[in-house]
Amino acid sequence: MAVAIVAANMTEFGQRESWLLELLTEAGEGCLQEMAADRTAVEHCYVSNMASGEFEGQTGVANALAAELGLVPAYTARVDQTSASGGAGIYTAWQSVASGASELTLLVGGEKMTHVSTAESTDIIASLTHDVEYKHGVTLPSFAGLTARAYLERYDAPRESLAEVAVKNHANGSLNPRAQFQETVDRETVLESPVVADPLRLYDFCPITDGSAALLFCPAEDAAEYTDEYVTVEGIAGATDSHAVHQRTEPTVMNGVVESGAHAMEQADTGPAEIDVAELHDMFTILEFLQMEGLGLAPQGRAWEQVMEGRTRRDGELPVNTSGGLKSKGHPLGATGVAQAVELYEQLTGVAGDRQVDAETGLACNVGGFGNCVTTTVLEGGR
Amino acid sequence: MAVAIVAANMTEFGQRESWLLELLTEAGEGCLQEMAADRTAVEHCYVSNMASGEFEGQTGVANALAAELGLVPAYTARVDQTSASGGAGIYTAWQSVASGASELTLLVGGEKMTHVSTAESTDIIASLTHDVEYKHGVTLPSFAGLTARAYLERYDAPRESLAEVAVKNHANGSLNPRAQFQETVDRETVLESPVVADPLRLYDFCPITDGSAALLFCPAEDAAEYTDEYVTVEGIAGATDSHAVHQRTEPTVMNGVVESGAHAMEQADTGPAEIDVAELHDMFTILEFLQMEGLGLAPQGRAWEQVMEGRTRRDGELPVNTSGGLKSKGHPLGATGVAQAVELYEQLTGVAGDRQVDAETGLACNVGGFGNCVTTTVLEGGR
Repeated sequence: MAVAIVAANMTEFGQRESWLLELLTEAGEGCLQEMAADRTAVEHCYVSNMASGEFEGQTGVANALAAELGLVPAYTARVDQTSASGGAGIYTAWQSVASGASELTLLVGGEKMTHVSTAESTDIIASLTHDVEYKHGVTLPSFAGLTARAYLERYDAPRESLAEVAVKNHANGSLNPRAQFQETVDRETVLESPVVADPLRLYDFCPITDGSAALLFCPAEDAAEYTDEYVTVEGIAGATDSHAVHQRTEPTVMNGVVESGAHAMEQADTGPAEIDVAELHDMFTILEFLQMEGLGLAPQGRAWEQVMEGRTRRDGELPVNTSGGLKSKGHPLGATGVAQAVELYEQLTGVAGDRQVDAETGLACNVGGFGNCVTTTVLEGGR
Repeated sequence: MAVAIVAANMTEFGQRESWLLELLTEAGEGCLQEMAADRTAVEHCYVSNMASGEFEGQTGVANALAAELGLVPAYTARVDQTSASGGAGIYTAWQSVASGASELTLLVGGEKMTHVSTAESTDIIASLTHDVEYKHGVTLPSFAGLTARAYLERYDAPRESLAEVAVKNHANGSLNPRAQFQETVDRETVLESPVVADPLRLYDFCPITDGSAALLFCPAEDAAEYTDEYVTVEGIAGATDSHAVHQRTEPTVMNGVVESGAHAMEQADTGPAEIDVAELHDMFTILEFLQMEGLGLAPQGRAWEQVMEGRTRRDGELPVNTSGGLKSKGHPLGATGVAQAVELYEQLTGVAGDRQVDAETGLACNVGGFGNCVTTTVLEGGR
């Protein structure tokens, strides 16, 4: 069954005073108010969230949200796939409608992170890595540094090309009123920022963020009941890579990206050349290259050239991360995959304001761990 | 699309030396070895788990499991709905097959709990309750005590009827080699055990448990490829009740049970009179009464009579909790709903050994929080 997204909403991302439940309620409420139907029609309500228990000692958050939004007795559950929880939530919501289990499904992703120290936050996130690597103190940023070094050497890419990802995404984020960072940055600022995991520097990393985003799903044939403007989910797929990163034979290829991307585009009966706009998981600048290449949006080892040539800027042939990406918009773990689809929804329905590009087909790639689990979604403008 | 369960397995429940990932791997491996196909056919792998981060500081457990079981690049995610995570996992796995997203889905539920103190464990679990109630120190056992008192008074039920639930379920558990408690108990032992939440005593409560359980799902039309003996999911539904327990108007009725049970039986085109065997969520003895009544297996206020008359014993008209239930088999949160279906699978395929009853249709009810979210599943023997 074809599935549509008929409403989309997100909170401001950044350092928020609200707790997780308040953030989820804000985005969920915004989404419900956009649709032209009574909210009692919602049959399933999913929450994408990685670690509400670890970050703020709250469990049962999906049930709490259903009550806050007045959705009881709608069925609820929480979906966790670490940083890819949002994409996993989209896949779950899609399945709930495609299977006939629910005729109207609300998905709300969110995370509240900024109230704990960076060390605590890093430890919660790093505990997703393989025991063997975790015990040696390896964290996701260190994997990113190692991978960036391998990429630059192997493909003879200039360090500046990574900086250009940050420059581009901050430029986009400066036009997104909900982005955590509203300022543009220049290449020098990136290249002179403090080293975090050589060769990567502070501006190669996304921030720690609070925020929430929400989407509403229904059978495509019913979409017009809820809205005049909607998008359809043409393809969606998820895939894993080895849990231990050191077991991978080729450090510059993320197999989960390759597998999920190929399946999602096959399901959508489309290919990389048909993608007009993409939201990629730029938790680290190097990841934008790896996803462009894994998805076939650039040849292997050549994404850096396309970024340097401006092809992925807003005015380029294939705009990437028009929202600002994780880099500038922020990365509240469970919200991120959902927020990627919110941006595509706005681009494909023509309400992206200053960030608007010309697009009929959009792709979102949401990455958990260091490519450990990936979901790819292909959306098309409906109406 | 009709969905079948073609393999089922569970670990011994109890105080285990293994960590969560080892428990999940044990049950998952057992399940995969039961089916007659290469495991690379598994397309989705879900983990039902409430709190791996809170209990043992591990996140990303679904991805770790896929790697341990050799399932990469299968898609994975973790499903959490507190104590009803297992039932939510079954619903998720069912949707993955019914939607066409996966042709073979492994679900593994588990929790590792006994290594933390009872106080810590209680706090992790209690954090699912509504803030207003949590701040006043209300825990699930205290809700159970209040509800039991209301039930006994309102329906003029003897205290002994609650004890009889424990006596029956321990008798069943004594025949289940994987149950945490292998001993029978008599009514006097229950009635003379220490008071926990008046009128409920120690033997009215399930223990804290480590364990895991697994199920394998595929389209019913393909079931014969994997096994000679399988069951079909005839109905499955989930529902919430108010998040704050004090907002409910009738303390002896759990609306989530009523709603999910009615929908699941409607989907299965069956009714309470057709149910031959049931696994109910007896976290507290009083819950077995509330579920029997909410599901229509007994008239409102009369479940206690049926228990006293022996109707729900193994040799009765409607055996309830032949596995021993949570009371005797144990309650590893994320595993429980999955283990309920494992017991029904064994009963309906005729491999339940000393616990075997005569049954064609089975029902499982999995309760999260204090009835905050409930899933009900109706299974039938196939072949």
